Amino acid sequence: MALSQVEVLPNGLTLAVEERPWMPGVALQLLVPVGAVNDPEGMEGAASLLEGWLWKGAGSRDARALADAFDDLGVRRGSSSALEHTTFAAQFLAEKLPAVLSLYADVLMRPHLPAEALEAVRQIALQELASLEDQPPKKMFAALRQAVFASPHGRNPSGKKAHLEAMSAEALRRDFARRYAPQGAILALVGGVRFEQAREAVLNALGEWSGPGVSYPPIELQPVHAIHLEQDSAQVQIGLVYPDISFDHPEFYSARLAAQVLSGGSSSRLFTEVREKRGLVYSVYAAPNGVKGYSYLTAYAGTTPERADETLKVMQAEITRLSEGVTEAELERTRIGLRAALVMQDESSRSRAASIARDLYLLGRVRPLEEIEAQIAAVDVPRINRYLAANPYQNPWIATLGPRKLAVTE
Amino acid sequence: MALSQVEVLPNGLTLAVEERPWMPGVALQLLVPVGAVNDPEGMEGAASLLEGWLWKGAGSRDARALADAFDDLGVRRGSSSALEHTTFAAQFLAEKLPAVLSLYADVLMRPHLPAEALEAVRQIALQELASLEDQPPKKMFAALRQAVFASPHGRNPSGKKAHLEAMSAEALRRDFARRYAPQGAILALVGGVRFEQAREAVLNALGEWSGPGVSYPPIELQPVHAIHLEQDSAQVQIGLVYPDISFDHPEFYSARLAAQVLSGGSSSRLFTEVREKRGLVYSVYAAPNGVKGYSYLTAYAGTTPERADETLKVMQAEITRLSEGVTEAELERTRIGLRAALVMQDESSRSRAASIARDLYLLGRVRPLEEIEAQIAAVDVPRINRYLAANPYQNPWIATLGPRKLAVTE
Repeated sequence: MALSQVEVLPNGLTLAVEERPWMPGVALQLLVPVGAVNDPEGMEGAASLLEGWLWKGAGSRDARALADAFDDLGVRRGSSSALEHTTFAAQFLAEKLPAVLSLYADVLMRPHLPAEALEAVRQIALQELASLEDQPPKKMFAALRQAVFASPHGRNPSGKKAHLEAMSAEALRRDFARRYAPQGAILALVGGVRFEQAREAVLNALGEWSGPGVSYPPIELQPVHAIHLEQDSAQVQIGLVYPDISFDHPEFYSARLAAQVLSGGSSSRLFTEVREKRGLVYSVYAAPNGVKGYSYLTAYAGTTPERADETLKVMQAEITRLSEGVTEAELERTRIGLRAALVMQDESSRSRAASIARDLYLLGRVRPLEEIEAQIAAVDVPRINRYLAANPYQNPWIATLGPRKLAVTE
Repeated sequence: MALSQVEVLPNGLTLAVEERPWMPGVALQLLVPVGAVNDPEGMEGAASLLEGWLWKGAGSRDARALADAFDDLGVRRGSSSALEHTTFAAQFLAEKLPAVLSLYADVLMRPHLPAEALEAVRQIALQELASLEDQPPKKMFAALRQAVFASPHGRNPSGKKAHLEAMSAEALRRDFARRYAPQGAILALVGGVRFEQAREAVLNALGEWSGPGVSYPPIELQPVHAIHLEQDSAQVQIGLVYPDISFDHPEFYSARLAAQVLSGGSSSRLFTEVREKRGLVYSVYAAPNGVKGYSYLTAYAGTTPERADETLKVMQAEITRLSEGVTEAELERTRIGLRAALVMQDESSRSRAASIARDLYLLGRVRPLEEIEAQIAAVDVPRINRYLAANPYQNPWIATLGPRKLAVTE
């Protein structure tokens, strides 16, 4: 397996390439540091509007010609704005790389942002926000994040209705000029392309990209508390957030393996105790999660109103019980599962490009598969149990959504 | 790119292998012909209950030991029952193939189906059914399929509440003995494994598998009509079903390309007219769909109550307008997109295993990538436009779900 080659280009853009010369295609993942977290005050949803607006013409092409140009190159692509980034992802045949990059350069550096197209973009953003009402798990998680963070990390990436309605073309253009910048942007390419070739194509297309850029605000947490959202839904949604150690912590892999014991496979504790033994839910999981600078463990279940209290109780009990340690068999099973998952997930150039970009954002470097394997192998039972005893998962933020309050939120 | 080798084993199980010797992993896709469509009368949801119950112990292992055994082999797996099949999908390291197959053999041939575990399985199935209420698009599509088919093809794969509650362990065990059978089952393996090796491992594990098996009922359609489901949701869900030509029709690729012109990329007609120009929705698409023996084109949009009538009108107009033909530029763009998508999608062994199994089910053979490419290349503008003029998309079944009726369903 090839290593990634990484270089910070003169304008601040970080380029990472993993060569897979046997592949006809290339997967591209571009993170631009424009997200809800650095939306200007009073303009929550600006990153979302900009992402939609960018496609309404760029360089020498109007919206229609731009869409046609991507389609003419056979590019499969998607883009979306989230909490910390706007992400552009694409797959295309390797020989199209220079042409594809030059289209993205138009979008990032020379978008028209025409006033007459803003209204349609705004309507779509408002609808996306409104559709949260019809997606109870997503709505619960948005409220939960807001309960965890006092800083803008608690914002809803879809924005605020009043803000979305009020933002002017002028203000958005100013925001674009300030935030869309190569500093802090990360471009990962995986597939049938050579580093030198890719570097040249990127310099040609994006070498002149510049802009002031903005940084992220510091993280501030809310005190731990529980919230309930009343909604006339059939199910009760339950979400928990536990503080966890950071991505660069020396015991990161101990925490990662513990999360797998909790929720990694069909023999994991949450799945067995909540679903298989008790039939309390058809969906339950826990997963490591976080933003840059603050990591947490998220747990989720959707269940009936009658089973909600017991479900929450069993989930919390299982998560707390981790501090008592894991068994040799659990650790071994988890190690096997994590290693197999790594090897197989790595086969997909799309998921590899995404994980390279994510590593560069969170850690400033790309972890080679071999390093991850060695780190996982180095965690034994005494070590993980020492870690878990010293760092128990406790005091979660809790959000519930459904037709009635749970005991915990009363 | 290797071709798939296919063999029907003596007991009726179809085995397909695509060798990718450079890959450490194997993707497995097993279709067993047990679905809602052949659930016994009065037992709608039996396939769903059986799929959950199978994991509650098999061969020499109880439920816990069975889950542990899969996890000990590092298998990532999923299973679900749907309309026509119960599907078992897995990924694991190639050297584990014999051990993995022998676990699946226990599940398929020697499950314990213990009475005491049925209640938890039933509760989970009931919750899955109930959760439909919190998923408006899924609920709308379930109702739409019911409006299209008079035969059991219109059933909800999650079953019926009263049936799920009433099914006895006895009746389910009889159903299992009858329906779980190799005849009509399809096993596809893609990855680092040789055909001969795979064949031997499959014969060892599943060679003795037998059972009567059941067939699928004939398809019967409802008259074309429109339905509305009243629900206090924020958005209106709109679904359309148009009759289409079958998978083995000589003009299949003309229809496929026409669907791409309608909804294939960012320059596709639906996306441009409904979303980009008018901002009517944030999600709209059309996609070829179907069951064995009946193909259709599905179109979907989710929008606000105020925009629903216009959205439906524009969607129908665009779909009907296909009969007037496509342009040279549209066809060329679509061909490029479809070809690039094929090549790149093919890189994933998981999606390749799924498409091999699907081809074998629907066509009785696996289409090599080269054949698909040649067929796509053979469609020119006169041919596709002749086809579209002779086979216009018209008279759809329509379902809407939301707080108020649309003009069409009044």
